Amino acid sequence: MSQSPDALPTTAPPGDWRLFSAEIRVSLAYVEALVAPGVLTATERDAVISALEQIKREFEQGIFKPADDDLFGALDERLSQIAPMESAKLNAARSRSEQTVTALRLWVMDELDGLINALADIQRALIQQAETHLGTLMPGYTHMQPAGVVTVCHWLLSYFWMLARDQERLVSMIGRTSQCPMGSGAIGGIPYALDRSSLAGVIGFADVTQNSMDAIGDLDFGAELLFYVSLIGVHLSRLAEDFILYSNPALGFVRVDDAYTVRSSALPAKRNPNAVERARGKAGLILGDLAGFLATLKGLPSTYNQDTQENRLALYHAVDTLKSMVKVMEGVISTLQFFPERMLKALDERVLMGDLADYLISRGVSHREAFGVVEKLIARAARAEKTLTELPLADFEAESKAFDADVFAIFDFARAAAQRNVTGGTAPAAQRKQIRAALDWMVENGLE
Amino acid sequence: MSQSPDALPTTAPPGDWRLFSAEIRVSLAYVEALVAPGVLTATERDAVISALEQIKREFEQGIFKPADDDLFGALDERLSQIAPMESAKLNAARSRSEQTVTALRLWVMDELDGLINALADIQRALIQQAETHLGTLMPGYTHMQPAGVVTVCHWLLSYFWMLARDQERLVSMIGRTSQCPMGSGAIGGIPYALDRSSLAGVIGFADVTQNSMDAIGDLDFGAELLFYVSLIGVHLSRLAEDFILYSNPALGFVRVDDAYTVRSSALPAKRNPNAVERARGKAGLILGDLAGFLATLKGLPSTYNQDTQENRLALYHAVDTLKSMVKVMEGVISTLQFFPERMLKALDERVLMGDLADYLISRGVSHREAFGVVEKLIARAARAEKTLTELPLADFEAESKAFDADVFAIFDFARAAAQRNVTGGTAPAAQRKQIRAALDWMVENGLE
Amino acid sequence: MSQSPDALPTTAPPGDWRLFSAEIRVSLAYVEALVAPGVLTATERDAVISALEQIKREFEQGIFKPADDDLFGALDERLSQIAPMESAKLNAARSRSEQTVTALRLWVMDELDGLINALADIQRALIQQAETHLGTLMPGYTHMQPAGVVTVCHWLLSYFWMLARDQERLVSMIGRTSQCPMGSGAIGGIPYALDRSSLAGVIGFADVTQNSMDAIGDLDFGAELLFYVSLIGVHLSRLAEDFILYSNPALGFVRVDDAYTVRSSALPAKRNPNAVERARGKAGLILGDLAGFLATLKGLPSTYNQDTQENRLALYHAVDTLKSMVKVMEGVISTLQFFPERMLKALDERVLMGDLADYLISRGVSHREAFGVVEKLIARAARAEKTLTELPLADFEAESKAFDADVFAIFDFARAAAQRNVTGGTAPAAQRKQIRAALDWMVENGLE
Amino acid sequence: MSQSPDALPTTAPPGDWRLFSAEIRVSLAYVEALVAPGVLTATERDAVISALEQIKREFEQGIFKPADDDLFGALDERLSQIAPMESAKLNAARSRSEQTVTALRLWVMDELDGLINALADIQRALIQQAETHLGTLMPGYTHMQPAGVVTVCHWLLSYFWMLARDQERLVSMIGRTSQCPMGSGAIGGIPYALDRSSLAGVIGFADVTQNSMDAIGDLDFGAELLFYVSLIGVHLSRLAEDFILYSNPALGFVRVDDAYTVRSSALPAKRNPNAVERARGKAGLILGDLAGFLATLKGLPSTYNQDTQENRLALYHAVDTLKSMVKVMEGVISTLQFFPERMLKALDERVLMGDLADYLISRGVSHREAFGVVEKLIARAARAEKTLTELPLADFEAESKAFDADVFAIFDFARAAAQRNVTGGTAPAAQRKQIRAALDWMVENGLE
Repeated sequence: MSQSPDALPTTAPPGDWRLFSAEIRVSLAYVEALVAPGVLTATERDAVISALEQIKREFEQGIFKPADDDLFGALDERLSQIAPMESAKLNAARSRSEQTVTALRLWVMDELDGLINALADIQRALIQQAETHLGTLMPGYTHMQPAGVVTVCHWLLSYFWMLARDQERLVSMIGRTSQCPMGSGAIGGIPYALDRSSLAGVIGFADVTQNSMDAIGDLDFGAELLFYVSLIGVHLSRLAEDFILYSNPALGFVRVDDAYTVRSSALPAKRNPNAVERARGKAGLILGDLAGFLATLKGLPSTYNQDTQENRLALYHAVDTLKSMVKVMEGVISTLQFFPERMLKALDERVLMGDLADYLISRGVSHREAFGVVEKLIARAARAEKTLTELPLADFEAESKAFDADVFAIFDFARAAAQRNVTGGTAPAAQRKQIRAALDWMVENGLE
Repeated sequence: MSQSPDALPTTAPPGDWRLFSAEIRVSLAYVEALVAPGVLTATERDAVISALEQIKREFEQGIFKPADDDLFGALDERLSQIAPMESAKLNAARSRSEQTVTALRLWVMDELDGLINALADIQRALIQQAETHLGTLMPGYTHMQPAGVVTVCHWLLSYFWMLARDQERLVSMIGRTSQCPMGSGAIGGIPYALDRSSLAGVIGFADVTQNSMDAIGDLDFGAELLFYVSLIGVHLSRLAEDFILYSNPALGFVRVDDAYTVRSSALPAKRNPNAVERARGKAGLILGDLAGFLATLKGLPSTYNQDTQENRLALYHAVDTLKSMVKVMEGVISTLQFFPERMLKALDERVLMGDLADYLISRGVSHREAFGVVEKLIARAARAEKTLTELPLADFEAESKAFDADVFAIFDFARAAAQRNVTGGTAPAAQRKQIRAALDWMVENGLE
Repeated sequence: MSQSPDALPTTAPPGDWRLFSAEIRVSLAYVEALVAPGVLTATERDAVISALEQIKREFEQGIFKPADDDLFGALDERLSQIAPMESAKLNAARSRSEQTVTALRLWVMDELDGLINALADIQRALIQQAETHLGTLMPGYTHMQPAGVVTVCHWLLSYFWMLARDQERLVSMIGRTSQCPMGSGAIGGIPYALDRSSLAGVIGFADVTQNSMDAIGDLDFGAELLFYVSLIGVHLSRLAEDFILYSNPALGFVRVDDAYTVRSSALPAKRNPNAVERARGKAGLILGDLAGFLATLKGLPSTYNQDTQENRLALYHAVDTLKSMVKVMEGVISTLQFFPERMLKALDERVLMGDLADYLISRGVSHREAFGVVEKLIARAARAEKTLTELPLADFEAESKAFDADVFAIFDFARAAAQRNVTGGTAPAAQRKQIRAALDWMVENGLE
Repeated sequence: MSQSPDALPTTAPPGDWRLFSAEIRVSLAYVEALVAPGVLTATERDAVISALEQIKREFEQGIFKPADDDLFGALDERLSQIAPMESAKLNAARSRSEQTVTALRLWVMDELDGLINALADIQRALIQQAETHLGTLMPGYTHMQPAGVVTVCHWLLSYFWMLARDQERLVSMIGRTSQCPMGSGAIGGIPYALDRSSLAGVIGFADVTQNSMDAIGDLDFGAELLFYVSLIGVHLSRLAEDFILYSNPALGFVRVDDAYTVRSSALPAKRNPNAVERARGKAGLILGDLAGFLATLKGLPSTYNQDTQENRLALYHAVDTLKSMVKVMEGVISTLQFFPERMLKALDERVLMGDLADYLISRGVSHREAFGVVEKLIARAARAEKTLTELPLADFEAESKAFDADVFAIFDFARAAAQRNVTGGTAPAAQRKQIRAALDWMVENGLE
């Protein structure tokens, strides 16, 4: 049995090795910035820069291997082996906690970038499938009961907008994250005339943090990312749920591609949508990461506490998990097979009963009476083992004088769809506008 | 024993009565909007408007009392008693689920407004106390161990910036919330030529939702508010923790005002900081509301499901709880007594040992050696039962030739603070700039 | 629209009024116990007892109304009004924190009793429906894909055993809860020769707590109940999910009784299973209560902290919510309509493909080959637009020489069921044994 | 800088490789059990057994390396390479889902055993330290305010009993876990006359599961373990909090051994209790694992769904994390240094004010008056800059006629402790009994 495609990330080691390249970037810039206030001479600077570059090479070659939970200690030790005196001066002007949170902020900024692009991939896949299925009618469910006629396009685009909001949330946190803590020192700021703004710019931050005590203890950007990731997870879990439900043979609306299912070991021809179920499950785990992260921060005293060494792990896990989930779901959507005839078969005239009642109400029948009439008609058809359209007009008239021959026009799913022509509605014209709006959104957000 | 001041909100009934006035606002505008597409005549409109106004009066007078979990059903029933035919036409053109989510969005927008103002109250209280204590030295702790000298001003402002980020997050969601779902109908949009944009504007929304299937099932704005509320709770829980720790008589830095403590029933003169502990506890419950809210949404199929009737309760609970917490913490901060002499007493020369090591390092001693020298000096002082400042220069010189008479200048807490003059640092000048920045932030955000 | 039947408990006020009668019970016994060590004289005892009884009457008559979050303070105040000197002596010998946790333990013990009986009601309803449907064949799903033939009896009993485990867990905590903290005093025990064991027995506890510092801060029994309640919630949410899925007209296996559905306001004849969806949603909220409760306790220092005044609220909410959920689900099960013909219609011969493959394997065909043969047969039938049973033997033989005329015996759902005759299997005999085992379990656990 | 001692487990790969040896054990027994019902011949059995043993060797030698999330698929594939025909017959008689849950149950049973022993190590460490410090007086805090005199012994034993309850909970789940699902097949039971009870016994299970549909979807034992692990985490986090607070130099009651602290990179002589803070943080993450696990199960339909492949990861993570935490905390306790003189210094006569008030109350003064008198005395002493014991009797008498010369006996911490001689109290005699009870508990539970 082949391995399911979302296997990889769950096995990634959990630790701070992810922060390595960000940390090197910060250190290189910091060393440079320490020359002006006279902490380092130009020669000392060069020695440290050369040492950092050496460690970088060693890391890339797998020679330098920090323990997963002590990247910064290991870096420090290696640096002091290569350039003992110079690194001493560097370390006198910075603290471990500011190093950690600075590297973590950079890492988050990189991940934001990656996530935004990955979500855009799903959004493109949704638009593409939606465009193909603008006219594919299907039942829309509320409370899992048929509630109206919609289309595959309409349904898929509903997820486009969820992800659009997710994207907007991710973008909204970039500014809050792009603030450099370097210069905060152990707690009260470093005692050197460091130009923090200039340093921040060199590293790639838009701004500096405003209070050193806050800066070394602040993990809001981590919590924020974790929540946005959780909500993306929730959205994708709902899409996964739809796919799983619609794959049940009693509905049979869609078929998940073989790349995302696993053959049953017990039943030939049974294919289980494992990857989709696992995506749904992953949303639960991510939610747990969020709860754990917040529970770890709650009630901590001011500034830096080592508990946060732990909750970084929850953040890494959640981001890895979501990335795997996003990749899988993008593939599932792109390769999904649709069965319009099964959708049509599941479209029952009962979803038109609202329109039938409205027909009566618009002719002056009260809500209560109109609903009563419609229910009696349904019962009448059931007794006759017919559909409503098969009943003669006389049967309609027997229940209410308000009926006329034009009532039969109601029993047309395409017409029912076409009438819902408000913005965001299921009418072909409204859907075309919606696709246009979705494409515009992509362009406006620099994703197309 | 007097009741603690945060008693009220936890006893508020949980239900949808909160949505009443928002719902009336929406209905009034909707009725008006149904005239143009011919769903209602002007006369019918007037009848419904008059009925809605009557119900509003009945609600305010306590005559109309909807069950907590069926506000919309009760409203509907009352409306159909007063104006049966007209309300039938109104109901033919809207669905319960769009009504609910529209009213909920309005409610959230109102609550955002209230929360932003309530947080601004805390921010002002923090600035005010900070200004008074710009020069009040205290030990700053990391890992709950003394890590440096800071000031009360510096410490309190660290919370100002946490709340500033919270405010920015709250503001960032207004646009995403201010989108009107009306017109979405049961699932596919209503079959009438409703001008959704114009309607949205009349109600007070900035925009309309883009997809009816998404609109009726979307609770992102609820999840988002809940998370922001959770993070505010986490921030305030950390401040509460600081207050509780600093109130322990071994530290004795602050005293919580009697209005926020409860006298021990067992020990005269013991006052327990109940309201502050409860604030810390509330942060835990709010976090649970968030976890529960997301768990309820996770894996739900598309569009509207009645499970969301339940998770609204978690949202109401979290918002109520935070409001109570914010009010209490604002009071606690405003009335907090500080004991500068106790802070000074707790300031131990050990927090200056970093500066002492830096002194050596700047004179060419390696990090390892400098730390070794300092630790030997500490041991030497301990043996002599003296502080380091009481040791003669000879003792310093005995440990390292790099020492000079000017070393004693280091043992001055105010000087140590003054040297930390980077942006966000603890030097008086840097703090004055920070207060200025905080006040500017308030003005820029329209809160002063 | 009538109110859904689970409305009530979510509106119950959240506070400590629930502890009133437990507290009175404890106080009455404690007053008695203080006579022997000479804390109270017999006359003083009588005065306090009389005062407590008066307050009890006042509470029952609604005259004594404690604020929701200060029951104990209010009781104290009222007591000191009626019997000032005597209550002073009583209070000198006890602390607020031990009073609270003692009353809470008694309340939990009462609730355990109630929950066990309520779950037994569901178990009886499940058995009753199961007995009626021992022979009602239905498809069993794994991964929401048809995986075999089972019966309604088999399916419903699977929930019986989940609840049986829940019951066992509830029972397992009684011993740990039934330990009396009274005598722990403020923190180190009271300084009087109280016979704690005897007091515990009088109140109704099986034992005393072993360490006063632990006793006043211990809420394990609350956490434990909350978790068991959460897991019951999860089990019932899964049953709710089954009911919702099986109510979708494409499956149509069951119909939730009108008492537990709400008529759509938009679509005549549409009935939404609101109460069942809400039960599913409630499981999410309860899970949040658990997370919040634990987050509140996490990292608290030793002994009593006022944060726990808050997490009691989560416990009350979870227990109320579960009780409402249990009542609803018991009603839903008891009144559920089953549609055996729809189940039969959904039973597809594909669920027999495992038996078909086994047929080949037992005749020496390898797993891989057997699965291949079966899949080719399925494809052949699809091409011929026939079911497999409609294919001639020749077609079977064309795919594998191992086939014989007896192969057609496989295409019999009842036979497939009957063959699964292991303990816990779906064969009628095995099901009869299982019903017997379930009934025995009820008797052994004193629930029948 | 040396690596902190709890580094290891957080880097362990997350996957199902943990189930390997359990799975082999189950398979070996299952193969044997399939001979009687004629599924396998003796020769076929031998072939499969030999293949399984070969794979076991290959696994131990690192030759057979299953992907982390597809142990069972990989095993299957390897088995079919070695013994194709025989393994086909084996697989025809079992399903992947029952294999997984059976192996997981065995793994949980092993972990339970390990956890119980690890907790016993902590309990022994607590008793040992408690015995040494039976007479070491310290302030006991409630609400973090001094509430009475206790001892180090009393304090440490409070954690003994928390862990004792944890142990009892772990033991209580063994019976519910020790039930063998094998024979459940894909969903409805296998169609062979397997003797499930006998098989269960051979594998090491006490019993068999009662319903095949329940058995393949049941993860209660996982949820239960996760909750017990969470609660252990909460208990240890509270102990960690105590250690961190008491390590602050203003209190200075204890010193965490260097093995569990990390030297500050910025401040010589500052040692941060990293391992203890991380333990406190881990409790938060574990709580998140629990929330995630339950959120993943909530609302799943009946029987097996692949989502559970994910929540196993949360279980693995939580168990690993707790094991690391337990090991660290056992080491921290065993090596903790205590500073009795600092504890004595922190003992303030204010903790005796309850006894002073009781002195008055026992002489007929009302509660309100007694508290008033004591508070006036405290104010009087403060004005005189004296302690209460330094005030002359006349000053006492000036506040209340009820005072007598014997009042000064109250100002004796050891006497105050000795008077608290109830079961569980702080008196030396009561503590000795408590140590005895703790040792008895260990013996009764087979842990000594």
